[in-house]
Amino acid sequence: MKLILASESPRRKELLKQIGMEFEVMSCGGEAPVTVTLPYQIVEEHAMQKAKAVAGKIMEPAIIIGADTVVALKDCILEKPKNKAEAKEMLQKLQGNTHEVYTGVVIIKRYEDGTQKQVKFHECTKVTFYKMSAQEIEDYVNTGEPMDKAGSYGIQGIGAKYVKEIVGDYNNVVGLPVARLYQELKEK
Amino acid sequence: MKLILASESPRRKELLKQIGMEFEVMSCGGEAPVTVTLPYQIVEEHAMQKAKAVAGKIMEPAIIIGADTVVALKDCILEKPKNKAEAKEMLQKLQGNTHEVYTGVVIIKRYEDGTQKQVKFHECTKVTFYKMSAQEIEDYVNTGEPMDKAGSYGIQGIGAKYVKEIVGDYNNVVGLPVARLYQELKEK
Repeated sequence: MKLILASESPRRKELLKQIGMEFEVMSCGGEAPVTVTLPYQIVEEHAMQKAKAVAGKIMEPAIIIGADTVVALKDCILEKPKNKAEAKEMLQKLQGNTHEVYTGVVIIKRYEDGTQKQVKFHECTKVTFYKMSAQEIEDYVNTGEPMDKAGSYGIQGIGAKYVKEIVGDYNNVVGLPVARLYQELKEK
Repeated sequence: MKLILASESPRRKELLKQIGMEFEVMSCGGEAPVTVTLPYQIVEEHAMQKAKAVAGKIMEPAIIIGADTVVALKDCILEKPKNKAEAKEMLQKLQGNTHEVYTGVVIIKRYEDGTQKQVKFHECTKVTFYKMSAQEIEDYVNTGEPMDKAGSYGIQGIGAKYVKEIVGDYNNVVGLPVARLYQELKEK
């Protein structure tokens, strides 16, 4: 069956390509406010919205993948920063600390006869940062890299300088746990 | 001071570029047999040989970085496979198991007056593989990716499909723990 990624994220596309998947991209926005509050619930719910938005528009058999990522530090959920000041604030919280990155994934299989099967899961990765000085935070924000990323850093970019260790799936932090996704897609 | 990477590894070059470092590459071979036996000793010793081989050839102030990576599973050290059969054998051992990846790094600072300062360290990352079928191992080896890599897999490539989780620095598995390296280079 045709694979459709319900996300415009260049990093998610890159990861699927990396493991040799063939897929199309079709995004219908679809991220609406949620009433759930735990990080894993939020990302699974957003992933479901994205996958459903695409599933509702297609008429052919296909496998649709929706995904959403957030960074969680204690009780705070860190999404993408609105501006440089917010990016600095987030990095100030993350430096010298351990936080969690949650990616929720929803797979919708749409069969020939219109019936659907859904699989929902999330992965959580712990990420520990080295300490960062105010100057290092300033310099990093000025590279522009933090601006379109949940938690204001890119582990696959310059941000790697400050990541001391992780526990869990690295690609989950980048935005898509491709190993778990591959395993789930293998299941009939 | 000028930074010199004493390694031809495309992955190590890529990682230094990723974190925005400017450097030159100068490799003098230099990996000779060692008498030490523990994985961390082997990689530190090989890293030292590579860094010293370059340091012995230059006359100007510079910082030279040598590095070496091996995969260790229980008492086995897995280096690069010699052929497809060996690659399959290694993957058969790694699948469904947890192994360790060691990268040793040596930094030699050569000052104007010819004096040197050396820093030696290693990082260890635990990597857990999903189970792989004989067919999956066969297919993966046929992509060619395993052939130039310690342990016969590339975590930054198609190999990502089979990596369940890691504990430690991801880039250490790719071949250079750039975060720790950056921290060490900051020290005077």
